[in-house]
Amino acid sequence: MAENIIAIGLDNVVVAETDLSLVDGQNGLLVYRNHWARDLAIHHTFEEVAHLLWYGELPTEQQLNALKEKLKANRTLPAHVKAALDQIPADVDMMSVLRTGVSLLAEPTHAWPPTLEQVISLTAKMPTIVAYRQACLQGTEPLEPNSALDHTANYLYMLKGEIPHPAHVRALDAYLILTQEHGMNASTFAARVVASTRSDLISSITAAIGALKGPLHGGAPSEVTEMIEQIGTKENAEPWLRAKLEKGERLMGFGHRVYKTIDPRATALRVVASELSADDPWFDLATHVEQVGLKLLAEYKPNRKLNTNVEFFAAAVMRAVGLDDAIFTPTFAVSRVVGWSAHVLEQAANNRIIRPQSNYTGVMPE
Amino acid sequence: MAENIIAIGLDNVVVAETDLSLVDGQNGLLVYRNHWARDLAIHHTFEEVAHLLWYGELPTEQQLNALKEKLKANRTLPAHVKAALDQIPADVDMMSVLRTGVSLLAEPTHAWPPTLEQVISLTAKMPTIVAYRQACLQGTEPLEPNSALDHTANYLYMLKGEIPHPAHVRALDAYLILTQEHGMNASTFAARVVASTRSDLISSITAAIGALKGPLHGGAPSEVTEMIEQIGTKENAEPWLRAKLEKGERLMGFGHRVYKTIDPRATALRVVASELSADDPWFDLATHVEQVGLKLLAEYKPNRKLNTNVEFFAAAVMRAVGLDDAIFTPTFAVSRVVGWSAHVLEQAANNRIIRPQSNYTGVMPE
Repeated sequence: MAENIIAIGLDNVVVAETDLSLVDGQNGLLVYRNHWARDLAIHHTFEEVAHLLWYGELPTEQQLNALKEKLKANRTLPAHVKAALDQIPADVDMMSVLRTGVSLLAEPTHAWPPTLEQVISLTAKMPTIVAYRQACLQGTEPLEPNSALDHTANYLYMLKGEIPHPAHVRALDAYLILTQEHGMNASTFAARVVASTRSDLISSITAAIGALKGPLHGGAPSEVTEMIEQIGTKENAEPWLRAKLEKGERLMGFGHRVYKTIDPRATALRVVASELSADDPWFDLATHVEQVGLKLLAEYKPNRKLNTNVEFFAAAVMRAVGLDDAIFTPTFAVSRVVGWSAHVLEQAANNRIIRPQSNYTGVMPE
Repeated sequence: MAENIIAIGLDNVVVAETDLSLVDGQNGLLVYRNHWARDLAIHHTFEEVAHLLWYGELPTEQQLNALKEKLKANRTLPAHVKAALDQIPADVDMMSVLRTGVSLLAEPTHAWPPTLEQVISLTAKMPTIVAYRQACLQGTEPLEPNSALDHTANYLYMLKGEIPHPAHVRALDAYLILTQEHGMNASTFAARVVASTRSDLISSITAAIGALKGPLHGGAPSEVTEMIEQIGTKENAEPWLRAKLEKGERLMGFGHRVYKTIDPRATALRVVASELSADDPWFDLATHVEQVGLKLLAEYKPNRKLNTNVEFFAAAVMRAVGLDDAIFTPTFAVSRVVGWSAHVLEQAANNRIIRPQSNYTGVMPE
């Protein structure tokens, strides 16, 4: 019997070989299947990058159109799912609703192994669940998906009730692309553990949503938006941030647990943001706050290399396109389902049950 | 930076220290918190063993009564949960329904850390979800929980529509006790991964149900019941089993991946079974099939040490008390929630996010 290795937290344990992504925090690199995520976010669309992660390559025009059509054809929620969602009390949070909504998508035909058709159907429906719930909470009639619009544009349309501005679609699309996949994090791992028992796709994604719901994983973007709101004006940025640093407090949206240098997702979102900021005073303020924050961090903490992280620009993008804080983590799930499901397909293609050990620290009975 | 360890499947990786249980497959031992699980199943009840796993010790009479009262007070499903369950199409399997039903129990007050009150409330409601769904499928009026009955008796009552026979309650209680906890398996691990992000109890247990749903984990007890049904009579046991072995086929319900010697859960269930068999011809047949199976395995495979596993007697107990195969894995979940939730409480008491690594096997972009 091989000797056991003790690894609480699994920090340095490789649990899978994957073609899907490389997260290199030391060098600030993020790769999705042989492509820089940064370039994908700037030059491609949600559907193109989903195709890359699911099928292994960027689509031809024909393949892209076929994928878009399949996604459009699968957006509508079955009537029983809407009727069940209608029963959930208004004070239940959106992540719990999304977890239940996905669980409700179970179909008798969903046996092992998971299929691309199931993955596309689920990815198409998750934005509809979020938008449906939001409409119910706001007391407005939920909008049917708009088949004239692509994935991201339709999500914004369903949430806001109007055809979105192209610059908003582009900014949100870039953010969604950059959060589609990110190596072996807790939610992706939960999805793979569940898949490894030969359970179904719905069970895996339900588990992943539950993991993403945890604040240690899904983040707290409202802290960034609150900071920028408190700053209020460009003139107030330097005194406000300086006062914070003088008190020894942390600036929200700077520094990252994995990325010890630049966060490549922030770099890409900054490019998109700079295009958008001319149109939007709030985004303009956010980019100004970033510049001042970086300058002051270099002054107060010269040895820390604290750079802007993805949450800073995520909060900025979400706010600029008019989505409130309560929608932030659910929107993260709406994009990350692409990576979760790609991992489930990869796990299924070469499955081995994930079943670790524990050490008993109690007493042996007599 | 520490060097990475590659451990796909995590077979020999200890991911947690736990006071909850020891599974020693080499020596056929199963311990729950300083007690032999075998003795607990024979001499104690569902509530007593749940108290042991949740609170760390067997209850005093006063503590036991308090726990029973709390469980009884929490059995009823909120109206909105029933209304949502009513919407699920009849062809959706019971494990998917249970996963959705648990997810529907989300409450705004369920923040980190998970509490014993939440654990008791959830454990009390899971049998009600299964029984509610079964009644809906059968077109009968779902029964309200019966507060004159303890946990296991009430579960049988709700499923069968009548006050159960004490011998049936005792046999099912023993089975439920023996499946409440079993070290670090895939479903328990999924629950701990989700909890480690500081997500809520409902998210953890939803994930665990999804993992247990997989046939590599939740088992296939119908194979044992089918075998015994095909054998049909005591006289047919030896010729039927011998023909199977002559063809080189496997006998269902014998041998276990972890237990290389006796399965201690089977030992305990056999004791309970022997008390029950006098009352029930099917159980009587099952114990006869076991004896013949063991005799023939010793003859045909003398070096394999193939013993009866827990699934053999689980199938026998479930059948004897009148529960059909479709209820088997959901009933496993109804008992295992005790162990899952004890692990979630243990994880929360000393939390560290579970976030492993993956190796990128793709190409680096230029």
